[in-house]
Amino acid sequence: MAIKKGRASFAFSPPPSVITFAAVGGKMENEGPMGSYFDKTNDDPYFTTYTYEQGESKLQKEAIRLALKKINLQSENVSFMFGGDLLNQCVGTTFGIRDYEIPFLGIYGACSTMSEGLLLSALSVDSKAGELVLAVTSSHYCTAERQYRFPLDYGGQRTPTAQWTATASGALVVSPSDSSPFVRGASVGRIIDLDIHDANNMGAAMAPAAADTIKRFFKDFKLAPKDFDYIVTGDLGKIGSELLIELLSEDGIDITKNHLDCGMMIYDFEKQDVHAGGSGCGCAASMLCGYFLPRIKSGEIKNIFFAATGALMSPTVVQQGESIPSISHGVWISHERGN
Amino acid sequence: MAIKKGRASFAFSPPPSVITFAAVGGKMENEGPMGSYFDKTNDDPYFTTYTYEQGESKLQKEAIRLALKKINLQSENVSFMFGGDLLNQCVGTTFGIRDYEIPFLGIYGACSTMSEGLLLSALSVDSKAGELVLAVTSSHYCTAERQYRFPLDYGGQRTPTAQWTATASGALVVSPSDSSPFVRGASVGRIIDLDIHDANNMGAAMAPAAADTIKRFFKDFKLAPKDFDYIVTGDLGKIGSELLIELLSEDGIDITKNHLDCGMMIYDFEKQDVHAGGSGCGCAASMLCGYFLPRIKSGEIKNIFFAATGALMSPTVVQQGESIPSISHGVWISHERGN
Repeated sequence: MAIKKGRASFAFSPPPSVITFAAVGGKMENEGPMGSYFDKTNDDPYFTTYTYEQGESKLQKEAIRLALKKINLQSENVSFMFGGDLLNQCVGTTFGIRDYEIPFLGIYGACSTMSEGLLLSALSVDSKAGELVLAVTSSHYCTAERQYRFPLDYGGQRTPTAQWTATASGALVVSPSDSSPFVRGASVGRIIDLDIHDANNMGAAMAPAAADTIKRFFKDFKLAPKDFDYIVTGDLGKIGSELLIELLSEDGIDITKNHLDCGMMIYDFEKQDVHAGGSGCGCAASMLCGYFLPRIKSGEIKNIFFAATGALMSPTVVQQGESIPSISHGVWISHERGN
Repeated sequence: MAIKKGRASFAFSPPPSVITFAAVGGKMENEGPMGSYFDKTNDDPYFTTYTYEQGESKLQKEAIRLALKKINLQSENVSFMFGGDLLNQCVGTTFGIRDYEIPFLGIYGACSTMSEGLLLSALSVDSKAGELVLAVTSSHYCTAERQYRFPLDYGGQRTPTAQWTATASGALVVSPSDSSPFVRGASVGRIIDLDIHDANNMGAAMAPAAADTIKRFFKDFKLAPKDFDYIVTGDLGKIGSELLIELLSEDGIDITKNHLDCGMMIYDFEKQDVHAGGSGCGCAASMLCGYFLPRIKSGEIKNIFFAATGALMSPTVVQQGESIPSISHGVWISHERGN
């Protein structure tokens, strides 16, 4: 049963577990500082398919395959799954999961998709509607660039505030279990729109949404940054991360000591030409499934608040002059079961 | 608590209620046979905004406003909401709900969005994560045509199998309550792809998904078509409805006596040039919120199985030669609370 902690915050009692997880990435991700934490990487941006879109689907298919394989779970035993991605009509997911025939609930949270999927998977297990519930997401540099900005062949210049969409995927399965990591609670995000119009500065657009959710979570759960090893945001990058720290400090919340941003972790700013950092659903998802969850499982990390962040922008409405609304869903993941 | 009935089917115990609902439509919808069942219609396709996309957002904003107003519910008392639509990055929803500041979980189920939203809202109330959970969706003829097919100005010929995307929205709120309509149970749909490649024949693409969910629901719940006043599909239209009946009869399930399709109900085939019928997220959502829910509330209708259907197509991948995978989520809505 979920225990309400605030308007849209709830604790899970007992907390369900993340019983398996896997991360898959591309060439840039392999060459970055986190390369060794991926379960598998592939240098071919097509992932041995014919189009970038099929390649992105293959990323999800592989992440699911590896996550299931780790615990010898057959796909037909998965109750149902949540998934989504950045592509129009979420086709990265649709075509990636089609062959598994797992009952499927599509979600759209832009780059916050993994925290939304994890939240809803935990909710589903908590309600006993499902026993083994999967969440997956992905992003791909080549599909995202041509959909949101310019076709790669155009060779457009990237602005200093632009972020590099990660070619990566993460998949996990939530189930009732006695072993860590546990999903202790969550806060559903609100749409926050501070009138940012620059589609090449998503960090600035998303930072206020992350600040809102982090603030609300701490208040609702009566917790503070010191209760967590890390406050993990999705893909704010350099600019967004600085803004987040500034916004939270205005409310007396200091996360300077334990803030990590997946978009800052995934690439090497010295050696890789990624401008303001990494982004994309696959960035936060692969860092969660490849780096954080294994460390929470082992006990090396005790508690994180995982607040992936999404810019709910569309090229159509940006061209119509609209601003970029953003959202962040937060999930408390712990090595300890709690009371 | 949800009671598992099958892999992805569950009953709610006690069943939550749909405590308020509203339907909003456009000119064609007002002129059709169901015109009087809409809470509000507007002849202006822009809904007094500057773009069709803003118009679609306005539809959702209005549907939510009217649903809340009926029971004097303030938006700040809504725990959180589920919403989505057909537009890239679900911007119909994002911009429609932005001003309400209701915590928001984005979903993507194409035209099955209302059954997905209702299912997840009921699940959230059931788990006690939320007390008042809202679901909304919309579609708009002018935004859908230019995104999926041709700009309206092009004046393209429509094929006989094409359907007319409804300009409509439906919104509802689920909460624990003693009054009808009750959400008794649900079945999560699977992606079904029988290799249909014609983006102008979505009924044919979606019928197998509806058949799969209806069959599975009856089997899991040990129920039959005779236990329901109506088996309601979303927007199969003429061709899809015929196919659905044929597919189910192969499995010995006869729904000829009580099948209704929202895409067949919403327009007048004699007087309105809609070819194979209505479609779009707003079609099933407005028929549910405008026609079915009020009749279930009054007891005129006792039980329906509401299986909205979605074609998970994207113009990009259709142009790349892909087929059209489809999905249908089913929800059992009843005047009776059950045991």
